[in-house]
Amino acid sequence: MQDIGLQMIGNRMSGEGSKTFRAWAPAQQEWLPQEFREATGGETDAAVLLAAKAFNVYKKTTAAERAVFLRAIAASLEALGDVLLQTASAETGLPLPRLQGERERTCNQLRLFAGVIEEGSWVNARIDRGTPDVRQMQIPLGPVAVFGASNFPLAFSVAGGDTAAALAAGCPVVCKAHPAHPHTSHLAATAILKAAQETHMPEGVFSLLQGATIETGQALARHPQLRAIAFTGSFAGGKALFETASSRPVPIPVYAEMGSVNPVFVLPGVLQENGEALAAQYLQSLTQGVGQFCTNPGVLITAGNADSFKAALQRGTDTLSPGCMLTPGILSAYQKGLLHLHTLGARALAKAPEAPGKAAAVLLQADLQQVMDNPGMLHEVFGPAGLIVSTGNVEEMYAFAEQLEGQLTATIHGTPADLEANADLIDILREKAGRLLVNGFPTGVAVNHAMVHGGPWPATTPAAGTSVGTGAIYRFTRPVCFQDFPEGLLPEQLRNENPHNIWRLANGQWTHDALT
Amino acid sequence: MQDIGLQMIGNRMSGEGSKTFRAWAPAQQEWLPQEFREATGGETDAAVLLAAKAFNVYKKTTAAERAVFLRAIAASLEALGDVLLQTASAETGLPLPRLQGERERTCNQLRLFAGVIEEGSWVNARIDRGTPDVRQMQIPLGPVAVFGASNFPLAFSVAGGDTAAALAAGCPVVCKAHPAHPHTSHLAATAILKAAQETHMPEGVFSLLQGATIETGQALARHPQLRAIAFTGSFAGGKALFETASSRPVPIPVYAEMGSVNPVFVLPGVLQENGEALAAQYLQSLTQGVGQFCTNPGVLITAGNADSFKAALQRGTDTLSPGCMLTPGILSAYQKGLLHLHTLGARALAKAPEAPGKAAAVLLQADLQQVMDNPGMLHEVFGPAGLIVSTGNVEEMYAFAEQLEGQLTATIHGTPADLEANADLIDILREKAGRLLVNGFPTGVAVNHAMVHGGPWPATTPAAGTSVGTGAIYRFTRPVCFQDFPEGLLPEQLRNENPHNIWRLANGQWTHDALT
Repeated sequence: MQDIGLQMIGNRMSGEGSKTFRAWAPAQQEWLPQEFREATGGETDAAVLLAAKAFNVYKKTTAAERAVFLRAIAASLEALGDVLLQTASAETGLPLPRLQGERERTCNQLRLFAGVIEEGSWVNARIDRGTPDVRQMQIPLGPVAVFGASNFPLAFSVAGGDTAAALAAGCPVVCKAHPAHPHTSHLAATAILKAAQETHMPEGVFSLLQGATIETGQALARHPQLRAIAFTGSFAGGKALFETASSRPVPIPVYAEMGSVNPVFVLPGVLQENGEALAAQYLQSLTQGVGQFCTNPGVLITAGNADSFKAALQRGTDTLSPGCMLTPGILSAYQKGLLHLHTLGARALAKAPEAPGKAAAVLLQADLQQVMDNPGMLHEVFGPAGLIVSTGNVEEMYAFAEQLEGQLTATIHGTPADLEANADLIDILREKAGRLLVNGFPTGVAVNHAMVHGGPWPATTPAAGTSVGTGAIYRFTRPVCFQDFPEGLLPEQLRNENPHNIWRLANGQWTHDALT
Repeated sequence: MQDIGLQMIGNRMSGEGSKTFRAWAPAQQEWLPQEFREATGGETDAAVLLAAKAFNVYKKTTAAERAVFLRAIAASLEALGDVLLQTASAETGLPLPRLQGERERTCNQLRLFAGVIEEGSWVNARIDRGTPDVRQMQIPLGPVAVFGASNFPLAFSVAGGDTAAALAAGCPVVCKAHPAHPHTSHLAATAILKAAQETHMPEGVFSLLQGATIETGQALARHPQLRAIAFTGSFAGGKALFETASSRPVPIPVYAEMGSVNPVFVLPGVLQENGEALAAQYLQSLTQGVGQFCTNPGVLITAGNADSFKAALQRGTDTLSPGCMLTPGILSAYQKGLLHLHTLGARALAKAPEAPGKAAAVLLQADLQQVMDNPGMLHEVFGPAGLIVSTGNVEEMYAFAEQLEGQLTATIHGTPADLEANADLIDILREKAGRLLVNGFPTGVAVNHAMVHGGPWPATTPAAGTSVGTGAIYRFTRPVCFQDFPEGLLPEQLRNENPHNIWRLANGQWTHDALT
């Protein structure tokens, strides 16, 4: 088991570094015994160079071959059995049923992308016959870096959505494991590497680097052979990577998902008619996973008399239990964030029972003017913290919406009459978020074709990407066109015969027929 | 005619600034009399704020209404008649027939985008029904800045492709006119503003700012209400805008097309069989428009004995005439660029007859090792300068291709046997350019659905964009999704009934039917 603490540079284990770190066991409140070595600059370089070499082979694999690879990863993850879930639970404090669901989601994502590339139309083939004859499709960018997220040790981590999308597109992945779950990362990486070997993918199509310092991630981001970066985490972390990537001699795109406060607007009609039930649903969404979701609804805005709604929140909060946070750092940031909100003038509304070393849900309240004067009150506090902003009427609610910064999601609750009367609120929020919800809650992000998990800065960069759903594949591609190419030299997807019957925009018309 | 020199902030003429500049008449070698005022910071601010206000109305226009607007711009440009062409010719030195063709292209672009948005499928609607119900489409970003290019006073300038794409997407445009053709820019802006008024578009949907200093463009790029920038010009100019936009408190995307050397690879078979004809065609492409095209083929690589090819180049060059460049600055940069190539070791091959104040075509030559050792020899020299790189065989040609930086285009000339034997060269070049050509020349960029005018850094940023063709519209949009929305609150494009019969990805299947 000595290998667990090492870098996985393709199939080679490497432990050049002398710096080590260990993972925290949130439930036991102790450091786990396994030591992990921080990747050195040389190891990082080796992993990216191997990925660049692998790209020359991997980019020529057929979609069918990559689909087999993706499905083999899912099967390998499943074959790891309970040890994967137990390890993840030990390192994150997340309960087994949640991790079981997350593994299912992770495998579903891999299989969804397998289906997308197998069907083939995703390459956006565009053909204009004439003089000249021009034919366009999406091609993979090259080796990319994926930074695992702390809060989804499986679904947004080593074998998570970013890796699935990049591998589906045809890009080798160098993954920087999140230091909060290095052993889980190691296990997921073994599943990917096993699948790669079984399906005869080139060595270097996947590598795993361990590290707890910013420098290791920055060295990866600066590597000249790297073509894109996907990241899910804090605003500070995402911004630092964005700045590094933008100031490289050859800048590369960073797809950073940096979270937001995901405002929930409760319109006056529903507040009066259904406030108590809403309060219970809100608390459930706010405290799910101890509030450690990018789409956690950290701010809720009411219009009109919110007294009974707030009373229901108070009653509901009394019954909540405290939970383990992922790391001591995240717990400490949560506590500091709450303190900061108090400093800015937020007033206590409700607080769940506390326990040492655990995070209790906290509800704060503020008036419209306070949050308008202190935009800092609308910065994300990662964890089960909710700020209830009371406004007197929908006009004030609109004013609040107008000055919001970019968000992953924005939610509106209303009766049919509320919604009909406030279509303008939807128009405002459309400019602020990547996903708009009516009468729902933003936690729980469906993985499908239509999902957008992204939004204007500072939610993500750039706003045009999504890190969930099949659209995520386009973060790792660019268009190329072939002018006056002989049929035989064209990629199959662009040939007249259209061997895979994919949908193509041919002379401006969508068709899946062959061209005659 | 006093207004000509002023800013056009919506329909209001403004001349707050005291700094002025004039345009150069390349054919006459003199400064034109009309003075233009440099936009002030206050005027720039006013234009963007008006655009932001206009966006609230413009984003709600229907595609049909915007199509009418785009077609009205084309008609207004045409209605300007000869004065537009004569003014452009005076300010650029470009001949009238070329400008007539460019006007046609400009109007065609506007009408092409009108057709695209009218048809409607461009919004990439994706619908997943189920629990939850999620529906995605592209929406406009908001006010954008367009920087006019020097070398296409109509087609890549005020009413050019970037403006057409942005207005089609639903984004108001603040255009920074290129100081080399301010009067042409003013005329094109009057056509846009007239069309906006005729078709009842909100004031501020278009504004024009004049300016000859970097500061004016930078102030525009820094404006907090701006959502994206489109630029065509030099590497230095594009890079400066990219750096400004990336370091804003809220970074925004810059779509900068910064040119390249557009390498042309001549394989051994065709070099021997058809070298003389190729030489003539190459010279024509190289000297078209006095070499002032982003896709000018500035580097040509041969494999095998190139003696008779080079002799043909020499004979052909002798018969060429010198031409006016767009500005004294561009002429001076051309001359400095040639000198720099000589300094790096390039040797003279041929030089067209010279004339004072004009640019003569120059062919230089170098060996493979020289260009491998001096990557600076492969930096663009804007103008009719061609560097002929001789290699002994295709293996050397591959080595050259491998170390190329990003390009807009890469071209391969070969007999059928050449091409069949060198498919690997295409594979290498696919990673280097946005457009690959076989047996053609890269000048002359077709405007259609399949064109890609973009490529890896330093050709453009980001590589995933195109500034020509209908795909250009996506630079000004982002996806948003609507979860569990009542049918009546959804945008028309996402409703079950599908009133415009657009193509949509519904539960993973492409269909233009209504959903039942």
